[in-house]
Formats: sequence, structure tokens, C-alpha cells
Amino acid sequence: MNSFGKIFRLTSFGESHGPAIGGIIDGMPAGISINFETVQQVLDRRRPGQSKLTTQRREADKVEFLSGIFEGKTTGTPIGFIIKNTNEKSGDYAHLKNAYRPSHADFTYDKKYGHRDHRGGGRSSARTTASIVVAGVLAQQIIPDINISAYVNAVGELKLDKDYSQLDLNQTEQTPVRCPDLNMAQKFIDLIEKTKKNGDTVGGQVTCVIRNVPVGLGEPLFDKLQARLAYAMMNIPAVKGFEYGSGFKGSEMYGSRHNDIFNPDSSTKTNFSGGIQGGISNGMDIYFTLAFKPVATLMQTQKSIDNKGKSIELEGKGRHDACVVPRAVPIVEALAAMVIADFHLIQKTRGL
Amino acid sequence: MNSFGKIFRLTSFGESHGPAIGGIIDGMPAGISINFETVQQVLDRRRPGQSKLTTQRREADKVEFLSGIFEGKTTGTPIGFIIKNTNEKSGDYAHLKNAYRPSHADFTYDKKYGHRDHRGGGRSSARTTASIVVAGVLAQQIIPDINISAYVNAVGELKLDKDYSQLDLNQTEQTPVRCPDLNMAQKFIDLIEKTKKNGDTVGGQVTCVIRNVPVGLGEPLFDKLQARLAYAMMNIPAVKGFEYGSGFKGSEMYGSRHNDIFNPDSSTKTNFSGGIQGGISNGMDIYFTLAFKPVATLMQTQKSIDNKGKSIELEGKGRHDACVVPRAVPIVEALAAMVIADFHLIQKTRGL
Amino acid sequence: MNSFGKIFRLTSFGESHGPAIGGIIDGMPAGISINFETVQQVLDRRRPGQSKLTTQRREADKVEFLSGIFEGKTTGTPIGFIIKNTNEKSGDYAHLKNAYRPSHADFTYDKKYGHRDHRGGGRSSARTTASIVVAGVLAQQIIPDINISAYVNAVGELKLDKDYSQLDLNQTEQTPVRCPDLNMAQKFIDLIEKTKKNGDTVGGQVTCVIRNVPVGLGEPLFDKLQARLAYAMMNIPAVKGFEYGSGFKGSEMYGSRHNDIFNPDSSTKTNFSGGIQGGISNGMDIYFTLAFKPVATLMQTQKSIDNKGKSIELEGKGRHDACVVPRAVPIVEALAAMVIADFHLIQKTRGL
Amino acid sequence: MNSFGKIFRLTSFGESHGPAIGGIIDGMPAGISINFETVQQVLDRRRPGQSKLTTQRREADKVEFLSGIFEGKTTGTPIGFIIKNTNEKSGDYAHLKNAYRPSHADFTYDKKYGHRDHRGGGRSSARTTASIVVAGVLAQQIIPDINISAYVNAVGELKLDKDYSQLDLNQTEQTPVRCPDLNMAQKFIDLIEKTKKNGDTVGGQVTCVIRNVPVGLGEPLFDKLQARLAYAMMNIPAVKGFEYGSGFKGSEMYGSRHNDIFNPDSSTKTNFSGGIQGGISNGMDIYFTLAFKPVATLMQTQKSIDNKGKSIELEGKGRHDACVVPRAVPIVEALAAMVIADFHLIQKTRGL
Repeated sequence: MNSFGKIFRLTSFGESHGPAIGGIIDGMPAGISINFETVQQVLDRRRPGQSKLTTQRREADKVEFLSGIFEGKTTGTPIGFIIKNTNEKSGDYAHLKNAYRPSHADFTYDKKYGHRDHRGGGRSSARTTASIVVAGVLAQQIIPDINISAYVNAVGELKLDKDYSQLDLNQTEQTPVRCPDLNMAQKFIDLIEKTKKNGDTVGGQVTCVIRNVPVGLGEPLFDKLQARLAYAMMNIPAVKGFEYGSGFKGSEMYGSRHNDIFNPDSSTKTNFSGGIQGGISNGMDIYFTLAFKPVATLMQTQKSIDNKGKSIELEGKGRHDACVVPRAVPIVEALAAMVIADFHLIQKTRGL
Repeated sequence: MNSFGKIFRLTSFGESHGPAIGGIIDGMPAGISINFETVQQVLDRRRPGQSKLTTQRREADKVEFLSGIFEGKTTGTPIGFIIKNTNEKSGDYAHLKNAYRPSHADFTYDKKYGHRDHRGGGRSSARTTASIVVAGVLAQQIIPDINISAYVNAVGELKLDKDYSQLDLNQTEQTPVRCPDLNMAQKFIDLIEKTKKNGDTVGGQVTCVIRNVPVGLGEPLFDKLQARLAYAMMNIPAVKGFEYGSGFKGSEMYGSRHNDIFNPDSSTKTNFSGGIQGGISNGMDIYFTLAFKPVATLMQTQKSIDNKGKSIELEGKGRHDACVVPRAVPIVEALAAMVIADFHLIQKTRGL
Repeated sequence: MNSFGKIFRLTSFGESHGPAIGGIIDGMPAGISINFETVQQVLDRRRPGQSKLTTQRREADKVEFLSGIFEGKTTGTPIGFIIKNTNEKSGDYAHLKNAYRPSHADFTYDKKYGHRDHRGGGRSSARTTASIVVAGVLAQQIIPDINISAYVNAVGELKLDKDYSQLDLNQTEQTPVRCPDLNMAQKFIDLIEKTKKNGDTVGGQVTCVIRNVPVGLGEPLFDKLQARLAYAMMNIPAVKGFEYGSGFKGSEMYGSRHNDIFNPDSSTKTNFSGGIQGGISNGMDIYFTLAFKPVATLMQTQKSIDNKGKSIELEGKGRHDACVVPRAVPIVEALAAMVIADFHLIQKTRGL
Repeated sequence: MNSFGKIFRLTSFGESHGPAIGGIIDGMPAGISINFETVQQVLDRRRPGQSKLTTQRREADKVEFLSGIFEGKTTGTPIGFIIKNTNEKSGDYAHLKNAYRPSHADFTYDKKYGHRDHRGGGRSSARTTASIVVAGVLAQQIIPDINISAYVNAVGELKLDKDYSQLDLNQTEQTPVRCPDLNMAQKFIDLIEKTKKNGDTVGGQVTCVIRNVPVGLGEPLFDKLQARLAYAMMNIPAVKGFEYGSGFKGSEMYGSRHNDIFNPDSSTKTNFSGGIQGGISNGMDIYFTLAFKPVATLMQTQKSIDNKGKSIELEGKGRHDACVVPRAVPIVEALAAMVIADFHLIQKTRGL
């Protein structure tokens, strides 16, 4: 339940306000040199407090590796790691002890487990995604030739009208909103700032592109490449939808238009398939888009109930993002890397 | 790779043109009376040749149970079953031996495994979904109080403009297109028939509603209820997208509008959450929508390549659906039942 | 629960008196030519009624493959197979409907599941091992260079006083008792026949040797090679003990004697380790021995109870082996092949 | 590979000489009060340096829980924990950098993974069993009514000639050698001390008794109770054999003697079955015995090879046990608790 992957496998632990979060990465091949700076750089892209667009909770997010790496190289044994929670202000949450915040997991955790750690969302906090990022960077080391790039595709009703092939994805990190179209990036930033000023939050979309995937990854019948990608992504807090290739638009099309005609080298002229046929990569670019709902914590007063069903009023307090999609970008990339690396390892077992 | 579920678990085998397909259902609780007629009725809803809207390949699709049931009741041991392939016309496929059909899995299976059973899609055929339907009907027996209903929500560009709560889902089976709005159903039928006449195919959408789910199902961090539902559904051939609750529309909204405010009984006034918070069911209706691409097999001549990269021409031959969504309805329901039943069983292990 | 293996994985179904038993083999690499005669030959070694030493229940034990093999070669998709139960005389068991036979699983199955298929042991019947044999023969195809040979090492108090290296294992099949020392084989046969005449049963031991295993198979910390072998073998009905290498004798030894000193080529002068160090194969022969209890079904009258706790008398009826170890030999080899083949496939994922 | 258990599941990490070892316990039911003192007490029973019989490596072995426990009670979320390595003298191992010690895992780890952490056995060190003990104590909380007691049954050729039912298991902790027969305990101690003085090591046996197990635990066909117990125990470093119930002795017996005759209350007059029938607990005591080889590290000079195949001489250095069985007792109990707790949770899913 707290593990993801079959051969390359992350098992995760930790709550937002305990001493530390962390995980164990199993199945990492031996002999891989780990660039610790890269790990930290990617973690920093997810980190709160990295720009004025994001929550001001400041976490150092320094990862400590406890095992599985010897003299800078993986040993093939499990990699344990922790990230200490350094800035947890539990006091901020005392008023929430018995509250059920709207569209949060307070109520469901309480009912499922009988009680819960109410501080900052506990286990349901997006803070747990830091462990995913660590695993993702290591997964990427297994597949160095495969390029995975995500970016913000929409904020609220504003949506990029170009597809990924018309964008220069090297520009994604140019702005804190992580949209490679710098013109649109500014509009996204303006919308997020305006929303923040209103004490409100807004949803958005992230698109991810995976290039240079060899043909043959994915394991039908029940572990098709698109199914595992969807499984991974739908576990990210706030994600409400997943589509790949032609996606929902594809459901409106005719087959005579939608079919991807082969070139003699077995690439295809179009790529409505999104790089996957029958659950298996076909060598074309894989691309998918995720819908994120607006964050549920508002800086406005809201009506709600407590755990006795009594009506309460929630003040807008704490430190939260007005829009999560910019910080979601490295998380999406990390999960994609974990999925592709795992299928890459499994594929080694399918032939003689 | 060919198993789905953790406790309630289907393992599947079979190709479209071998002697039989089938599966093994493990983890079925003991002592459940199986209504064999119900199993067959639901299988018949998936069966090809059931109406003029669907492929004319006629399969009896009679399921034979080989184990795990004694005197009409489950014994707790695995349930093996087979469905014989009675109408496989392999000859229909001889011309495809070396062909790579556009937007089919011919090419990827060949590259992944080195060779393939080219007859009728082999393992990638939607015929394998019959085993899913069998498992789904048994899963539904585990959760008799939970109601699962899917229906066709869109065909091509035609889309129902009502949400599920405005429809009478008892009407779904009134027409072969399985849309509960009978007016729209007729338009869907007309569009499919016109498309068929053109030798073309068209995509569509299916919505599924799950009612009366107890609070507490779903297993964060990596087996959230929405994630497992997406995983299940994205394995259905032709599915390109999944959204639940507010879905992609939700990504355009503000938090102040999107948050579901609690009633004193802990139900919510709105249900943008789609019945799930933090990956756990909250007792409200769960609903999700799937996008299906148009079937890749056309009754038109298409250009393609063979396994040497040589240009070929594919004639429109064989027996295929012009639109798969009507037959997808019982498959979606079956997978939803498998997911919910599995989480129901797992939930028994989470408290003392 | 009814699956075994991580990559090469058998899922099994079937009771002794249903229409068929069978299984699904997942993870079989593609492109392997299956020799169907070999499969049948090995099945025949397990088959009841093969000699006067074994039960006279005669089963054809003809395996039918339903998928995953095309034009004689594996396709990489799951291999479904069934073996029909042709000679089930359910009538033989009518008198046992409410009886709890001593040292059988009647009582535990009834209590665990609430009811049971009482005919011939149902799911607890050794008949289910036929599916294991099928999977084992296919597993052996994955590791053609590795030689796996089991033989009968003891019957009752009679025990071979030579170790495997002093025996010619090519002689194992010379006698129906499957002991390669032909002198001792005769003594074993005499003891079994005498025991049978007395309406009694007797236990025994099987030793298995695995030669030519590459260095590196086995997955610490919790899937060590010896642990998985023990896990596999302890699932065989009637097995009460497992030891490998020096085994129980090794617990009496001093380290200065027990340590296996290396030769310059990294083979070892002795092999108390049994070919495994730290859970990983070291290239030396792997060998282990299994203890089998005497079969619980006697051809004598026994006192027992029924499911109300009432005292009953059981007549000696039915068709059973007086000693199971000769027929266990191919089952032990099959499980060993499954374990080694699985680790061989997993090992492909451990390096770059 | 580094996880054990299906619902109650430990994932482990750590080497003997890294910063810390630890693990994640998933599937722990919510609402269980954790007695941290008990955890530490059991850890102290495994700890090196606890008596003059054991290695003088002194580790504080203080466990730190990082998640999954709130206000002293489990929350149902994963429990992360670490145990810092405080006394690792890596310098002790510099001379072993390229050495392959006889009957150690140096050679196999090097070959499997390409390189290894040579300090103190790295991942193959018995130090990793501390994490098992932590998980075992928590598992025991899930099954408070089930009593699990292990003890030393043999040291070298000295063997207790009473079975567990003739012993007062409350006396086990009276002596550092953990044999409840105090007379024999002294002989065991004398033998270990003499062996130590000789710079040698000696093997031994541990027996474990599990009382008050409800009928119905265990999951045939491939996860029988005895099979999972054997799997768990054979992963303990140095274990060479497992037998339960009548064990190897049972292989010498006749069925007419070995069958356990029922009493009217469905208990049995004898218990050769060892509390398990058909892979399922029958309510009688479960008991099993493990053979441990002598520790491979000697305080004597030994000949060996290095990683180039060159002959070397190993001096007797470092801090090691002359006999591991006393410290193995809490490890065996811990693994038994994990197995039983896991089956207890799974059993909740088998009925309606």
C-alpha cells in the first residue's frame, strides 16, 4: 500500500509533522554512480518556499542516504533515506484537532483508521511527495538516455494553445511557474498572484513528455504502460484526471483520422497513440496531461463541521500554495522516471 | 503482469484465436452463492454479435467454471474458468501475418517478444475482456449493497449534456447503445450506423457511477482509490483518458467554488470530489468518465507497412465494431466491482 | 495465495474431484520451443497408477495448453493449461462427507472456510501437484544448462548412507522407487510393499541436487535462495522438514571444520554451504533434503470424529500410496526449476 | 526482495557499517498502543555485548520511530524507524577489502553486484536482524493472545533430550544461553566458552513454540503456514534446516503411529502434525526447530583467497559470537510473530 513499483520499488513513510519522512528504494541496480547534487537540485524544485509563488513553509529538504551506496556507487542493496522535518509548526494546527476541513482527507482518515495525526494533513500531506522525488532522480539514473520533461500547461481557465512539440522545453525552468512559453508563463503568474491576493486557490494542468523510449516497455494485460503511468500520477494529491496521446479529444475523432500511419522505419506520421500501442511503448514520444484541482486550503473563512457534526468556522491560516501545478512538475517527472525505469528492468526478463 | 488485485485477484490467460481464454480468481471469500445465470447475462452484454451495432463475430461466450465452487457456493479456493473460442476464423487473418496495422499492437508485440500470434490481435484482442467480466460479476457478489452502473456518455462529438444525477440509469439497457437518455441514445445510434456505413469508426465516452460505498475504502499512499480505478480502466483496450469527480473541468476552477462543504451528517453539499478524499472513499457517490479512441480496424483500404518496413495496402476485412463504447459498459462495471471488492476485503485488515 | 514466483509465476486452480485442475504460467520468456513430449513424460512420472508401488487411481493426466504458445514457441503471454480429472470416483468419498479424517485437512478446511469440497481432499489433494510439474518443465526450458535431479534418499528407517556425489543419478529412473542405488532401491521397494500389505503407510526422504548454477542467484534480505527453496518445498503436501548443505548435521559442527576453504578458482574444497552463501548461489552444487511424513490415509480401520464431534469409525477405502516419496521426486525437481528460473530472470534486472 | 509479509509487511534497509539500519512496517492496524519499553527490551535481547557469551561489539541499538505512531498509538500509516550504528569500527575491516573469507558472502556479493561494502559483512551482516526484531514486537501487538516462545535446544553435539512440553519456558531468560533446562544451560555455556577459548565457533539449534493459535491461519496452495514459517526462518543468517511437528523423525514413522487421533473437542491426542494440517493451523501448538551452522568468522588464522584468486592468510580479528543461537532466540520469535500476525490479518478477508 505504501510501496510502488515491481522491481524498482519505493516504499515510503512519514507524516508532515513527525520527525522525518523518507523511504526505501529496492531493486536499484548495482554500480550506478549517484550524483548527490542532482538529487538535491531536483528536491529543491519541489521544495516549498522556493519562490513567491509557493507556500512560505520553508523546509531545508536535505536528503540523507543511510544505506545502499558505497563509495558513491549503488551496491544493489536497498537505499534507505530520510528527510527531516525541520520547520513543522504544529501549533499552527491546534485549532484543527477536531475539525473536518472541506475537501481535505481529515474526515476520511478519521473514519478509516479511527483516529489520525491532525497536524498539517499528516500522512495525506503533499510533503510525502519529497520521497517520490528522491526515488525519481535515482530511477532516472537507470535510464540515462531517456528524457523526461514536464511543464505547466494550464492554470485555471488559461490554457496553452500549443502542444509540446511546438515548445522549447529547455525554457521550463526560466520562470517559477514552469511554463516553457514565457509569454503564457507571465499570464499564469499573474493569475496565481491575483488568486493568492483573493485568499483563493486555482487548479491547473501539467503535461509530461517522455522521449527516446525504446520499443517494448509495458506489460499487458494488467500492467500496460499507460495504466501504470495513470496509476502513478493519480496518486499525486489533487490530481483529478489523466489523459495520454489524443486523450479526451481522441474520443471525438473518427478512426480514419486517428490512426497513426507508419513510415517505412516504423515511426508514425502522426502520434495520436501517444507513444504506446497495446500497452507497450512504440518508440514515439510518450506524452500525457494531468488535471489538478485547486488546493482545498483557502485563506478565507469557510464553514465546516467538526468530528461531532457540529458546525464550525475555519479561518484562513497556515502556509499554502495558491496553485500547486508549478511544484507538481518535478513530482510528475519523478513518477514517470520510476515507471519507465521499472518497465526497463522488467523488460530484461522477457526474452532469453 | 497478467494478474489484477491484491486480495481479490484475477489472473488471466488467452488469445483471441487459441482454443480458449479464461482466468483464475483468487481471494474469493467462501460461502457465497453464485448465480450462474447472472454471470452469463452480464457476459452476454459484452458479447460480440449482440446487436446490429456490434461486430458480427458471434461467440457463444459460455463460461465453464472448473473449480472453487461446490454445491453452488464458493469454497474459498481459487475459481478457475474457461470460455472457449468457438467462432475463430483464423483464415480471416492470414493476410495479416506480416502486416503491421496502423494503431494496432502488431508492431509493438513483435518487437517486445520477438514474434507474435497474429490472428485477430492475439493477446491484445479485446476478447480478453470477457474474463474480466466474469471476475467482475463474482466481485459484485462480495459487495451486494454497492451499486455500480456505467453508461455511454458520448459518441464522437455528440455528448450528453446532463450529469449522472439527472439521468435514470435504469434505462441504460433500453437501447443497444447503452445511453440512459433515450433521445440522445437514438442520436448515438444514428451516428454509429452512419459511421459504419462509411467503413469508419468513431470514439466515445463511458461514465460510471458507484453508489452506496462505505467510508474508508482505498489505501494511500500508492493505492489510492482513484489511482486503482484509473489503473484498472486504463488497461481497457482503446481507453485514452480517465477523470473522476470534477475531472479536467476541476482544473479550471477556484478553490472557493470547488470545495465540497459538509452537511452536519458529514455528507457534502456538492460532490466535486467524486466521492473520494485523500484516496479514501467518503461515502458520497463515486463517478468517473473514460475516453475511448475510435477502433483502429477500418472497413476501408489503408496504407501501412509489413515487418520488413515494406509499404503494403490493407483491405478493410474482418468483423469489427464501428464504436466500442456500448460493449465497454459491462467491462467498466466489472473492473469497478473488482477494485471496490478488493478494497473492501483489504479494509477488513486495517483495524483491530 | 495460489500463485508462486515473482517473474516466472504459476497461479494454480483445481480440486481433486472437479472437472479439471490447471494453472496459468506468467512471465515465461518469449521464443522458447516447447517440447510437449517432455512435458508429458515428466507428468507421467508424477502420475498415479504408474507402477504397483503407487495408488491405483488411474489418471490420464493429459495436459492441454490453451494459450501463450504459437507454432510451438512461447509468445511471452501467459500460458493457460488444464488437466482434466478423468477418473474421479466421487462415490468413493460419500462416506466422508461429515468425517474428519485424522491428520488430514478436513477439519482445518471446514473451520477456515465454513464448508469444503469433501471429495478426495478437494483442494488439499496432492493431485494439485500435477500443475506444479507442468510449470516446472517449462521453467527448466528457461535454464537448459542447469541440471536438477532429485531421488529417494530414505524410506522409513532405511536411509542411504552415501551422499549424492557418490551416486550415479542417471540410475534414479531405473526402479519405480527412484533411488539411484539399486541395492538400496530394492530394500525400499520391499519395505513399501510390506507396509502396503499391512494396510499401513510409511514416510521417507527426497534429496535434490542442482548443478551448474551460475554464481549470483538469490535475493537477500528476504528472498534468499535457500529461503525460497524451503518455501517452495514446504508447500508440498506431507513435507515436514527441509535442510540444505550441512543441514541439521551442520548444527553439531565446529566452524574450523565447517568452513569451506576456497580453491584459487573460487570453487571450494568442501561444500557444507550447499552451494549458497549469504542467500546467493556460489557456483557449487546446491543440494537439499526433504522429510516426508507417512500418508495419513490408511487401509485400516481408524477411530475419528465427525463435524459434530461424534465418534466415528473410518474404514480403509479408496486408492492411495503406501509411500509418497517416489512420486514426489518429479514434484521436487519441478519446484526447484521454478525457483531457479525465477531467480535467473530476476538476476537480469540487478546489473546495468 | 527486501520486504517480507503480505499485509503486515516489513521493508528493511541498512548495512552493518553505514550510518543506520532500519525499516518500514506497512499494514499495521490503527489504534494499537505501542509499549516502547517492550520494544527496547526485546531489542536488548538480540543486542551484541549483552553477556560474556556474545560478541563484544557494543551497540546501543536504540530504535527511533519516525512515523505512523501518534500520541502513543498506531495511526494505520507506515511506521518508519531507524537504529543508528554507533560502534562501527570500520578500520577493523580494512584488511578484508579484497579478501574472500571462507563461508562468508564476500565472494557471492561481489559476483552478484559487481562490488560490495566490505565493512563487517555489509548487507549480509546479522546486524540487519535488529530491524526484524522491531517489526516482530509490533506484530506481537496484533496478536496479544498468541504466545510465542523460542529457546536454545542444542549447542554443537549437546542436545536437550526433552521436548518443549516437558520444559518450563518461563526459565528461558534465566541464563544468557536461553535454554530453559538450567542444567543443560550450564553445559551449553561451558561448551561455548571452551569453544571461544579455542578461537573456534560451534553450531546449535533453536526450537520455537506458538501457543493459542486460532484454527484457520495459513493460505494454501502456496502460502501454507509451515511454508511461510520456513521461508521466514531460512532467511536468518546461518540457518541450515527447518523442521516442524514430527520433522525429520516423522519421515521414519508409519502412518498408523503418526496419525493424530481426534478428541471429541477436535483437539488431537498426539501432535505429530505440529499444529498444522493442509497448511492451516488446527488449534494445537505449533512447534518447529532450526539448525544453525557455526559462525564462519574464527579467531584463528585461516587460508583463503582474494578477489584475484591469490592465496591469502586471514588472521582472527574483530568481535564475533562463538555461537549465535542464544542471540537468535528473539529473532526467531520476531519472525514467527510477523508470520502469524500477517496470516491473522489475511484470514479476516477469507469469509464474508
